[in-house]
Amino acid sequence: MRVLLVGAGGVGTAVTRIAARRSFFEAMVVADYDLARAEAAVAALGADGGRFRAERVDASDETAVAALLERHSCDVLLNATDPRFVMPLFRAARTASATYVDMAMSLSRPHPERPYEQCGVKLGDAQFEAAVEWEKAGLLALVGMGVEPGLSDVFARYAADELFDEIEEIGVRDGANLTVDGYDFAPSFSIWTTIEECLNPPVVYEADRGWFTTAPFSEPEVFDFPEGIGPVECVNVEHEEVLLIPRWVGARRVTFKYGLGDEFIEVLKTLHKLGLDRTEPVAVRDVRVSPRDVVAACLPDPATLGERMHGKTCAGTWVKGVKDGAPREVYLYHVVDNQWSMAEYGSQAVVWQTAVNPVVALELLAGGAWKGAGVLGPEAFPAGPFLDLLTAYGSPWGLREQ
Amino acid sequence: MRVLLVGAGGVGTAVTRIAARRSFFEAMVVADYDLARAEAAVAALGADGGRFRAERVDASDETAVAALLERHSCDVLLNATDPRFVMPLFRAARTASATYVDMAMSLSRPHPERPYEQCGVKLGDAQFEAAVEWEKAGLLALVGMGVEPGLSDVFARYAADELFDEIEEIGVRDGANLTVDGYDFAPSFSIWTTIEECLNPPVVYEADRGWFTTAPFSEPEVFDFPEGIGPVECVNVEHEEVLLIPRWVGARRVTFKYGLGDEFIEVLKTLHKLGLDRTEPVAVRDVRVSPRDVVAACLPDPATLGERMHGKTCAGTWVKGVKDGAPREVYLYHVVDNQWSMAEYGSQAVVWQTAVNPVVALELLAGGAWKGAGVLGPEAFPAGPFLDLLTAYGSPWGLREQ
Repeated sequence: MRVLLVGAGGVGTAVTRIAARRSFFEAMVVADYDLARAEAAVAALGADGGRFRAERVDASDETAVAALLERHSCDVLLNATDPRFVMPLFRAARTASATYVDMAMSLSRPHPERPYEQCGVKLGDAQFEAAVEWEKAGLLALVGMGVEPGLSDVFARYAADELFDEIEEIGVRDGANLTVDGYDFAPSFSIWTTIEECLNPPVVYEADRGWFTTAPFSEPEVFDFPEGIGPVECVNVEHEEVLLIPRWVGARRVTFKYGLGDEFIEVLKTLHKLGLDRTEPVAVRDVRVSPRDVVAACLPDPATLGERMHGKTCAGTWVKGVKDGAPREVYLYHVVDNQWSMAEYGSQAVVWQTAVNPVVALELLAGGAWKGAGVLGPEAFPAGPFLDLLTAYGSPWGLREQ
Repeated sequence: MRVLLVGAGGVGTAVTRIAARRSFFEAMVVADYDLARAEAAVAALGADGGRFRAERVDASDETAVAALLERHSCDVLLNATDPRFVMPLFRAARTASATYVDMAMSLSRPHPERPYEQCGVKLGDAQFEAAVEWEKAGLLALVGMGVEPGLSDVFARYAADELFDEIEEIGVRDGANLTVDGYDFAPSFSIWTTIEECLNPPVVYEADRGWFTTAPFSEPEVFDFPEGIGPVECVNVEHEEVLLIPRWVGARRVTFKYGLGDEFIEVLKTLHKLGLDRTEPVAVRDVRVSPRDVVAACLPDPATLGERMHGKTCAGTWVKGVKDGAPREVYLYHVVDNQWSMAEYGSQAVVWQTAVNPVVALELLAGGAWKGAGVLGPEAFPAGPFLDLLTAYGSPWGLREQ
C-alpha cells in the first residue's frame, strides 16, 4: 500500500507518528498547502521516517491532487484536512482510481424554511450520490473513519452483531475532563469549528420518521463517562454517525450528543445571542472583520496546548435494546489520557484519538480483513478485527454494562 | 440663568426637550463635537427653540469650553457627555467662574495590587481634591446630578431627614423590564459603558471600614421592583452614590446594586472569560481591532431603539433603619414607562429619566431653593423642594414600605 496523506496539521502529524511504527504500508507521502508543515511532520519522525516524504499540494485543486496520487503511484488517499476539502479530495481519488478514506463527510446545508425541523442537504449527501458510480468501478470510499465518526460506528456494528438481538436506541456520547493550565477558558479544539458544528441544526434518526433536525443544544442529558471523567452535560449536535449508522445497522433511534458541559454551552449560546458567531464581516471603525475570527483570535491556539493540558477524553457508543429476551444497555468506549498520548507520541489526546483509527483501518484494508466497493461507512465492515487491532496498537477499548 | 449644555447625544437632546417647557432660564447653548447633532437637537424643538442655539465644541479642550462659556455669558455648565470628559469640563467651568453640574463623576482606577479588596483612585476623587478651592472661590460644582447618581442621592437625604431616626443600610437598586422588539438581545444602553461599569471592582461603604471593593457581580440578590416590573437579579456595581451618600448622610452601610438580570450578567461574564471585553487591539488576519469595539458593532445602537422598546425602568433607594424605636424599611423610587416618555418627549425611558433630574436641579438653583459652594452631591441639599418640583414636572415618585 502506498498512501497519500493530505493535511499535516495536528491530526495528520499524529497519523505519521502512529503509522511510522507499523509495517503494513510501503510509502506515505505527506502533503500540505504549507510545505514547511509537511516537512516538519516528516522530519519529526527522525530515523523512522524512511518511508515518508513531504510534498506541497492545494487540497481544493482536485487535478493537482489526482496528479500527485499518480506521480507517487499511491493507491490510497487519506484526507486529514478540514471538511471544506472533502469533495475535491473525494473526486481526486476517484479520478486516480485510488481508495479514499476520510474522518468526516461532505458538509450539510440547513433546510431553507424549516431549519430546526427538516433536513436540508445532509452530511455526506454529496458523497452518497456518487456511491453507485464508485461501486460499479469497484472502488472504495471509506467515509467518516476517525474516532467520531469512525470508532463510534464500529462500536455500533459490534453491538448489533455481538451484544443485541434488537436495538431500540444507539446514542454516540462524547465527553472529556480536559483542563488547560494557565487559562480560565481554553478549548482543546478549534473554536471556529466548534461553533460551526454546535450551532448547525442537530440531526436525529428515527426508524418511523427518517432523519429530522431540532434546535441547537436540544435534549440535554447528563451522561456519566468512565475512567474518572464522570458526569458531563451532553446535548444533541449535528454529527456524521447519525447519517451513517442507520444505513447499515438496525436501530429505532440514533442520536449524537456532545459533552460540551454547561459552561461551554453557555459560551456558545452567548456568542450566538450577540452575533459573535457570524462569519460575515462587520464594520468596526475603519476596518471590516468577521466576528467569529475575532473570537478565535482572543483565545489560545488549541494545537499549542498539549503540554499544558491535563485529563482524559472519551469517545463511545451507548446502546439500549434486548438480548435473549432481556433488556440490556451498554456503553462501548475508548479513553485517551493526554499525559499518555503526549509521552508516547507527542500528540494531545483529542488529536491522537482521531488519528489512530484511520491508521488501523488502512492496516485492515492492506491485509484484506476489510474490503468492499462503493461509498461505505465504518459500520459496513466487520467490527471484531478493528477492535482487536486497535487493542494491539496499545490503546484498548472498554465495555460497561449500564 | 444662562446654560451651556455640553453633549447633544441621547441625554443632552432629552435635556433640551424637558428644559424648553420651563421658564427658569434665559438661554441654553447646546454644544457638541458634532455640530450637526447639536443643530438637530435645537431644530427638533421647533417654535419652542427660541432660547436655544447650537455650537461646536471639543469637550476635551478646556480652554475652548471656558471661552465658549464666556462668549455666551453662561453662568452654568451642564455636562451631558460621557465620564471621560468630566475633568476638562469641570476645570473649564472653574476657569470661567461658572456653576458646574454633571451626571457622573471623575473616573476610578483599580488598586494596582488588590483590586478586589481595596480602592485605588475612587470615583470623584479628582473632583473632591479641588473642593476647598471651589468653596473658597464661592463657586458650586454639583456632581452626580442625574438619576443614578442624582435622584437616588436625593432619596437618601429625604429618608434621613423625614423617615428615619437611625439608618442601618442605604442600598440604591436599579431595575427594569425593558424589551426591544425584533432583537434576541439588545441592551437599552451602551454595551461599551456597561462592560466598563460592571467589570470594574464594585465599591461598598461601611462606617467602620470606610470604602472597599469586591469582585465583580458580588452579593447577588433578587429585588422586587414596583409598578409591575417585578423581581430582578441585582449585583454590586461600582457607582457614584456609594462615594457620595456617606459624605452627607449617616448610614452604617451603603451599596449600589444594578438589576442586570441573570442573562445580562452571564453575557458580561462570558465576554470577560473569552477576553472579548478587552479594549487593547488584537490581530485578526491582516487588521487590528479592539474586541470590545467588535462586540459593540455586533449589537444595535441603543439610541435608535426607543420606538421598538417596551416596558418601564425604575431607579430607587432602599433604606433600612429605625424610626420612633421601631424597625422600618422603605423603597423610594421613580419609574418611567417608555411608552409615556416616547409619546411625551420622543426620548426613550432610560435617557429621559437621566435628563429630567439635572433640569429640576437647575431650576432649584435658578430660584435659590438650592444654593451652596464647593464640590457637593445632591444629598448636600434639601430633598423636599426637589421631589416636589419633579412631581410638578409630571413625573411623580413613590414610596413603598417594605
